Formats: sequence, C-alpha cells, structure tokens
Amino acid sequence: METQVTELAYALDTFYFLICGALVMWMAAGFAMLEAGLVRAKNTTEILTKNVALFAIACTMYMICGYTIMYGSADWLLSGITGDGVAGAAEPASYAPSADFFFQVVFVATAMSIVSGAVAERMKLWAFLAFAVVMTGFIYPLEGSWTWGSKDVFGLYNLGDLGFSDFAGSGIVHMAGAAAALAGVLILGPRKGKYGPGDVITPIPGCNLPLATLGTFILWLGWFGFNGGSVLATASVESANSVAVVFMNTNAAAAGGLIGALAIARFKFGKADLTMALNGALAGLVAITAEPSTPTPLQATLFGMAGGVIVVFSILTLDKLKIDDPVGAISVHGVVGLLGLLLVPITNPLTEDGGSSFTGQLIGAATIFGWTFIASLIVWLIIDKVFGVRVSEEEEYDGVDLAECGMDAYPEFTTK
Amino acid sequence: METQVTELAYALDTFYFLICGALVMWMAAGFAMLEAGLVRAKNTTEILTKNVALFAIACTMYMICGYTIMYGSADWLLSGITGDGVAGAAEPASYAPSADFFFQVVFVATAMSIVSGAVAERMKLWAFLAFAVVMTGFIYPLEGSWTWGSKDVFGLYNLGDLGFSDFAGSGIVHMAGAAAALAGVLILGPRKGKYGPGDVITPIPGCNLPLATLGTFILWLGWFGFNGGSVLATASVESANSVAVVFMNTNAAAAGGLIGALAIARFKFGKADLTMALNGALAGLVAITAEPSTPTPLQATLFGMAGGVIVVFSILTLDKLKIDDPVGAISVHGVVGLLGLLLVPITNPLTEDGGSSFTGQLIGAATIFGWTFIASLIVWLIIDKVFGVRVSEEEEYDGVDLAECGMDAYPEFTTK
Amino acid sequence: METQVTELAYALDTFYFLICGALVMWMAAGFAMLEAGLVRAKNTTEILTKNVALFAIACTMYMICGYTIMYGSADWLLSGITGDGVAGAAEPASYAPSADFFFQVVFVATAMSIVSGAVAERMKLWAFLAFAVVMTGFIYPLEGSWTWGSKDVFGLYNLGDLGFSDFAGSGIVHMAGAAAALAGVLILGPRKGKYGPGDVITPIPGCNLPLATLGTFILWLGWFGFNGGSVLATASVESANSVAVVFMNTNAAAAGGLIGALAIARFKFGKADLTMALNGALAGLVAITAEPSTPTPLQATLFGMAGGVIVVFSILTLDKLKIDDPVGAISVHGVVGLLGLLLVPITNPLTEDGGSSFTGQLIGAATIFGWTFIASLIVWLIIDKVFGVRVSEEEEYDGVDLAECGMDAYPEFTTK
Repeated sequence: METQVTELAYALDTFYFLICGALVMWMAAGFAMLEAGLVRAKNTTEILTKNVALFAIACTMYMICGYTIMYGSADWLLSGITGDGVAGAAEPASYAPSADFFFQVVFVATAMSIVSGAVAERMKLWAFLAFAVVMTGFIYPLEGSWTWGSKDVFGLYNLGDLGFSDFAGSGIVHMAGAAAALAGVLILGPRKGKYGPGDVITPIPGCNLPLATLGTFILWLGWFGFNGGSVLATASVESANSVAVVFMNTNAAAAGGLIGALAIARFKFGKADLTMALNGALAGLVAITAEPSTPTPLQATLFGMAGGVIVVFSILTLDKLKIDDPVGAISVHGVVGLLGLLLVPITNPLTEDGGSSFTGQLIGAATIFGWTFIASLIVWLIIDKVFGVRVSEEEEYDGVDLAECGMDAYPEFTTK
Repeated sequence: METQVTELAYALDTFYFLICGALVMWMAAGFAMLEAGLVRAKNTTEILTKNVALFAIACTMYMICGYTIMYGSADWLLSGITGDGVAGAAEPASYAPSADFFFQVVFVATAMSIVSGAVAERMKLWAFLAFAVVMTGFIYPLEGSWTWGSKDVFGLYNLGDLGFSDFAGSGIVHMAGAAAALAGVLILGPRKGKYGPGDVITPIPGCNLPLATLGTFILWLGWFGFNGGSVLATASVESANSVAVVFMNTNAAAAGGLIGALAIARFKFGKADLTMALNGALAGLVAITAEPSTPTPLQATLFGMAGGVIVVFSILTLDKLKIDDPVGAISVHGVVGLLGLLLVPITNPLTEDGGSSFTGQLIGAATIFGWTFIASLIVWLIIDKVFGVRVSEEEEYDGVDLAECGMDAYPEFTTK
Repeated sequence: METQVTELAYALDTFYFLICGALVMWMAAGFAMLEAGLVRAKNTTEILTKNVALFAIACTMYMICGYTIMYGSADWLLSGITGDGVAGAAEPASYAPSADFFFQVVFVATAMSIVSGAVAERMKLWAFLAFAVVMTGFIYPLEGSWTWGSKDVFGLYNLGDLGFSDFAGSGIVHMAGAAAALAGVLILGPRKGKYGPGDVITPIPGCNLPLATLGTFILWLGWFGFNGGSVLATASVESANSVAVVFMNTNAAAAGGLIGALAIARFKFGKADLTMALNGALAGLVAITAEPSTPTPLQATLFGMAGGVIVVFSILTLDKLKIDDPVGAISVHGVVGLLGLLLVPITNPLTEDGGSSFTGQLIGAATIFGWTFIASLIVWLIIDKVFGVRVSEEEEYDGVDLAECGMDAYPEFTTK
C-alpha cells in the first residue's frame, strides 16, 4: 500500500504538471490575440501566421535539441520511450518525464512569442521564423540551462552560487524574450510614419481591441500555469500551500498592475486608456513572476502596481528613443522583467537555504540580457545579410498580409 | 504514512480549488466578450475597460476588506503569511487557505460583471468603477456572509435556520448582481432612441455576435468551476461523486436552457434568434446554480429549459416596462436567479440534515434582493450626486469610447 | 486507511475525467470560432447558431438514449441518481459514473461539430438540427458501441477481435463526423459561384481569420483533454506516464502538422497560407488521435507532419472533384482520420495483449465509414424530402443569417 500512496503522489504531481503546461500552451493563443488586436488590419494575417508557426517551431526545436541543451541528455525524446516513459531520463521519478518536457516546451514558446509583437508590421515572415529556429533551439535553452539546468555560465560562474533567483522566469523567459526582441527592433528600424518629422510621434492604433482584451485575459489565465507549475510539485501540504499562494499572488499582481497603469494613464492622458490597462495587467504578471511564492497578497498587489506604473513610462520613453515596439512587448517583458528580478530580495533574501541578493539579481540580469541580446543581434544580422529582415516599402504600405500570406484577415470589413 | 495520505487529500483538494478558481476567473473574459459583442462598436472600448478594471478592483477590494467581512478575520492577507500559509486563517486545514481565498475572490468579480452589461452604453466609466469599489468591498461581502459565512442577517435571523439553501449562488451571486444592476439602470434610465415614441421599442443590435458567442462558451466552461468548486472538496468518493454530478448537471442545464430559448424564440419570432439562444444557455446555468448536486440529469435539463423559456419572456417584459438592459443581464441573472432558488426544494427539500423549503427560499431571496437593491440604490444615488452617473447626450451619441477612453475599438472597420 | 487510499485514487481519476471533459467541451467553442472565421460575414450568425444548438442537442440526445445505446443501460441518467451516483451504473467503481458520462457526452458533440463546417453557407438551419438529433442520438452511439462499447457490428463481427484499435477516435469520432458531413455535402451540392464555368474554382475567403486562429488554438488546447482523457485513468504511475506521453505527443503532432502544411503550401503557392497552416495543425491532431500513447515524440511530430501534408493535397483534390467543403472538415477529419488509423500498427502492432493490424484498421475504417455514410445519407435524404436541406438561391445570395436567424453577425462592419 505504501507503493500505492507513492504512486498517487506521482500521479497527482504529473497531472498538475500537465494541466499547468496546458495553461501555458494556452498563452500562445493569448499572445496571438493580443498582437492581432494591436496591429492594423492589413498586418493581421501575418502576425497570426507568425504566432502559430513560432509555437510549432518552438515545440519541434526544443524536442530536437533545446531540452537536451538545457537539462542534459534526453535521448528518449528522439529514439524511443519505454512503457513507463523513463528510459534515459535524467529526471527524478517523482513525476512523469514526459510531463516535465511538456511543461518546459511551452515555456520556450512563450519566450519566442514576446519577440513577434515587437517586430510586427514590417518584418519578413520567413526571416522571423528562421530566427525562431535559433532562438528556441539554442539561444534560450543555453541561457535557461544556467539557472534551471544548474550549469555554469560558459564554465565561468554559477548564478545560483552568486545569489541569483528567478522563480518562474521574469528574467529567464520574459526579459530574455524582450532582449531578443530589442535586438531585432534595432536592426529592423521603426514602422514608416511612426516617427517624425522632428519629434512628432504618430500613434498607430490597433484594429481590434476586443481581441487584445481577450488575449490579455488568456495570458492572465495561462499565467496561473506558468507560475503555479513552477513550484514543480503539489502532492504535499507544503507544496500545495506554495502553489495556492502562487495562484493567489499571480492574480493579485495582475490586478495591481492593471489598476496602476489605468490610474497613471488617467493622470497623464485624462482618459481610461484600455491598451495601457492591458499592458499594466501583463506588467503586473511579469513583475511577480520572479518570486510569486514569498510575498503577501498585499505585497503582490503593490509589486504588480509598480510594474503597471513603470510600464506606462517605459512605453513613452521607448517612443521618445524612436524604438518602435507596436505592442509594448519590450517594456512589459523586458523593463518590468528586470523590475521583477530586483524585487525578489525584498521577500526572498539570501539565506543559507537559498534566496537572492540585489547583487546576485543584477549579475544574473546582466548575464541573461547580455547573452541573449548579443547572440540575437548576431543572428538577426546574419539573417539580414542572407535574406533581409525587412519587407519593401511598398509591401509595408500595402500591408504584409498580401505580400507574405496572400490573404486578408478581414476581407469584408475594411475598405482599403 | 497516514500523514502522507492526509497530505495527499489536502493537496488534491487544494489543486481542485485552484483549478476551479482559475475557471471562474476565466468567466471574467466571458462577460467581457459577451458584453463587447452585444453593444455597438462605438461603446466597445469602454465596456472592455469596465470589465478588466472591475475584475482588478474586485480582487483588490476583496483582499483589503471583503474576505474578512464575509468569512471573518484573515490578517494573513495583508500582514504576512507563514511558510504553510495558515497564519491566522480561520479555515480548517483540509486545503490551503490561499486556495480558498482565490476561489472566493473570483466569485466577487462575477457578481460585479453582471452589473457592467446592464448599464452599458450610457454610464460614466469612473462612476461605474466607484460603484465597483463599494459593491465588491462591502455590499456583496456582507450579503454573502449571511449564508456562506453563517452569520445572522443584521443580527436578526439566520437564513440557514429558516431553510434557505443556495449551493453555488443563484441568489447570493447572480441575483445579487442583478439587483445592483437594476438599481443602477433605474437611476440611469434607458439609452437614447431605445424606447418611444409611444410604445415603440427599437432593437439596438450588438455589433459582433461571434464575440458574444465566444463569451457564452467561456461562461459555460467557467461555470464548471463555479458550480463544481462549490462542493468545496473532492478528495473522497462522496465528494468526488458530487463534483461529477455537478459538472454533468451544469452542462445539462445549459443545454436545456439553450434549447428552451431557441424553441420559444422560434415560435414567437419565426427565426432562430442567436442572442436569445445564448441568453437561454446562460439562464440554464443560472437556474441550476442554486442546486446542481441533487437533480437527475433529466431534471437538470428541464430546470435549465425552464430558465431558457422564462428568460425570453423576461427580456420582452423588461422592454415593455422600459427598463433598458442592453445584454439581458437582469433577466438572465435576476429573474432566473430567483427561479433557481425556488427550484431547490424540489430536489433538495428540508430535512433534519439541511436542505431548503419554499418559505426559506422566498425569505432568503427577499433578504438578498432587498439588501443589495437598497444598498446599491443609495450608493448609485450618492455617486450620481457627486460625479453624475450618465454621460452627456452628445457623448452618448458619439459613443462613450471616445469620451471615456479616447480610442475606438475597431478604428478601421466602422464608417461613422 | 486502505479505504482512504482507494478513495483518493477514485477522486483523482474522477477529477481527471472532469477536467479532460471540460477541455473537450471547450472544443465546441473552437469549432464555432473556426467555422465562423472561415465563412463569409453574411453566414456567420447562422453558423454560430448551428454550433451552439448542436452542442445542446448532442448533450440532450446522448442523455436520453445515446449513452445507453453505446454503453448499455444507464437508467440513472433519467430516473434518478443516488447519493453516491452509482445507481444502476454499468461502470466499474474506479471513478464517478457521472464523470464518465460527462467525458463521453462532449465527444458526441465533437463528432457533430465536424458536420456543421462542411455544410456551411447553404444548408437550412432546422434541417441541420434535425440531422443532429439523429446523428447524436443514434448513428454515432451505435457506431461507437462497436469499439468502445465492445459490441459486435450488427451481431456479425467484433472489431477488437479483428485487430482494430482507435485510441481516442481518429476513426470513431473524426472520420465518422466527416462521413456524415460528406453525405450531407453530396446531397446539398456546392455553394453558388464556387465552381465553374468549366474548371474554374473561385476561392471564397473567410471573413475573420483571427477567429479562425483562435478556434484552432482552442481545439489544440481541448485536444489534450480529448486524447489525454482517453487513457481513462491517471491514478497510478503507469497510467500517469501514459497520460503524460499522450499530452506530449498530441502537442508534437499538432506542431508537426502545422509545419508540414505551411511548408507544402509555401512550395505550391509561394505564400505562407494561414488557413492551410491551421488545417495542418488540426490534421496533425487528428492523425495522432488513433494512437497517441506509443509513438516517440519524434514519431508523433512526423505523423502529424504527414497529416499536415496530406490535408493540403486533399483539400485541393476535393475542390477538383467539386465537393465543396468551406472549412476543409472532410479533409481534416475524414482523410486524415483514415491516415491516423493506418498509422497505428507502426507503433502499436498486433500482439497477444492487443494492438492493431493494417487489415484490422482497414476493416474498422470501412465499417465505420460505411455505416455512418450510408445511415447519414438516408437521413439527409429523408430530411431533404420532408423539409428540404438547402436554402433558396435568393437566401443564399443574401446570406443565410437574415433568412434563418433574422440578424447580422456584424451589422456595423460590412457594407452589403
């Protein structure tokens, strides 16, 4: 009977991983809807294509090599799996190895989804997908291996030993995605008509705000799996309590972020700016992701609120710097991802049992950002030389949908 | 090992609460899509903003004071939580207190979401959010404390002792939300052009029926968490069976409601009225919510069907009374909420072990409606005096999106 | 305490069934969004109405008679259910009978959803719903009883004994739905303007590609429940591993299908065809559904990719044959459903313990297709004689929304 009890714990933890992984997979739909809602109608088919294709590429590349790079040998992914699914698996047998892979693989897609929004409305589709292959197969897995795979950074230093902690990936997933996006945006340049003449910044409104709102709700829901699953176990009182706290705090931070952004936008613009509110909720979620298990719900709300306030200023600042990010992804995931890392030591300071220090967080952030940004920049540059990353001016004017996908997203609604 | 078995039960119940809570959170997206689909394009950004903001406000206010009002002291929400998450919690330790909070907090948002649809297309955004603060922080928690917190109604009488039973909240959540909505609608008045001259009633069609359909499906899915989670445990044969019956019956009632409304609308209008069918499904869900665990599936289907039939007549009647509810929320959640309460004694009559009587249900319904309606009316009146609840005629004509949010929801699709 | 351990396993398996069932229910929303996105604006309200109504009809008919036909006597569905929910249930008591019903009932709706897309834009609503009654109450349950109910095919032969295996229903659900759809399409004929003069094939683009993409993501998510739940247990190491492998492979196959279709479409058309990519993902899912538990992730990816490639050719071929299927349902679910069946023996060959042979798969496919197609054809013909299945030319030209539902789906966006 002791076996049966152990088996039940194994089964519960496995089921928990699978459900959390399914919720994270659902975030791919959230990014797709958010981005499709925030671009113009003429660029919608292409952003949808990018989003579904990057997810498929991420799942395939992570299976082929990413998971092995990040966590060590996993021959069973390619060469066969025994009845109990553990052949050659490096994982401890406290839950199914396949469930672990499923949970990890959807994280990769999240990192890559962040990029698609920032480079929207002007990048070539196939250039983007080529980048996705390298990002999900190599750049992210190597970076992720340093913390979650416990490996040394290029054999030089170990982030965990230096007091770096990133519970569910404010830095490892979100800031890394934003770093790759920033590198792409710098090479790509802004959309025609966005900046100038002089200091003029022309707003380019998204074509479908219900979609953007739906996308935000999907991401909010999926984030329970993203953060909740990162406890990595639930079949004991301690881990179950931790998962529950994480769900509660993730929700509280999103709420705080939304309120913060809505209030700041009201003061600055005099209106209830829906797109800022949505980005505020997402910023709250990113801010709490580095440590959702130790704050009180009130702290989580305040951390989220800080994220929501900062994201508004960051979006305005990037526009002043003429860094054109149609959906605000670099601000939401990059700037607030860094904030999330820096908030960790407040509630989870360095002790003998782990935790984090501000120094450790800064070193970790610099390491992740540095590697991902530079590696991405090199890859973007190579792709630019080989294929070119940007569509022609005429294609941009007509919309990338026609040039890249050959079909309108809303053929009956618009009157171009 | 006995400990481990107890821990597993604790972990399973906690996980069940969290998943059910996540499903209820998802209902917020359902309300947002349903309402955005049923208003006109020019009022869409604002209804979306209301929906996301009310959810954030509900989560924050319930943490600050609502949960404590409803269930007693929960200092841990604000002042800290220990490693096992139970510091100062009044809950029995059969599942994580944070999971209980998470499940309850999303209920509050549901009650408030009901209001936003009924007052759509003419209410000031900030007036609405001010009401949301009071409703989610005080009016609902006090009302909810009488049944689910086992408190006496203003120290006068105890609803449970009088034979009142409301499993998952046909009255406590849905009718209460509708009562608050009705109070708002009465103060606000109908949309310009809806009624008159004379007895003319002008239909104002919703602008995006796929969104409304999506919203209904989301609510249908989320309702499994709403009702299924209200069993409050699943880690035994008895409770697991109960949860399973609740899922099955919730689905059956929605199906019955949809068929009932579709059929009645066919007889009355000669057409397959999609919006009536959607409201029929929701009415079926509201009707079964007061007692989804004791009916047979056939009874559940018939109860739902009754809800679907009644909701059509209720919507037509409210229009005759010139009570303007753009999405039918008062009929779906209020009138059918009452129906749901009155159906309980049929399958769960009063016995020594609990249950309900018609008298008890009527007293409970009158208590909930009376308190929520009067308290809401007072708050709406105060807000009206201080800020005004209604936008100007010109703003209403132009659409509240521009005035309140400064952005169109579909800038490229409409040709105003 | 042994009892408590057994109870926990019962509770976990029940909860697992309910969550998987809820995910499959969510697929109904996926089909609705996919189909609404791929038809023209003027036929959108009607396709939405069909999708919500067929789900309600499926749930009700399966309760009234379908479940009993498929699995034997289930009096408790109609005449009452005891406290522990097992009165009269034929199921083994390893999980709640209501959970089993809930999981099975949503499968019926899936089979029926496949039909609605194929007959879109020209079929009478009430004719379709009449067919739904027969399909979900009789045709599918009888067909399903042969494999999943272990019954002999008309008392003649037993598919299991012949080496037929269909894990989650590539044939039993998907190909069967496609067979019913094909019968309907043949009787109905193509949409006006689709074919001719001569060999000209006129593309009729869908009106809302974000909706179609959302629908695909919903189906992808729901499919984890569809395939994952078909393991039928999760509360042991063996079954938990199997469920985990199924989740992982289901995801891998969808990814492979998307990549396959996107690449083939690129070679054939020179563009990144989003609708082909979406159908490719769905084809990948259908292809793996007959056996998601035995392939390696790499095999699952390749099987999905085969589905994605074949679906493109199948869609083009059906158009050449002037079989008009607006959403590609017959190709995705029928042609690739057959592929899925034929792939099973590769990873799950016939042994003493079960498995499948190519001969068995072919006999099973022929049996399922033959019965469903012929029975459907007869029912469609009867409905055509009694009511007529096709709307008038004028109604088709104006759009079926006005004729059948009396309301536009997007009254403010289109300028007919």
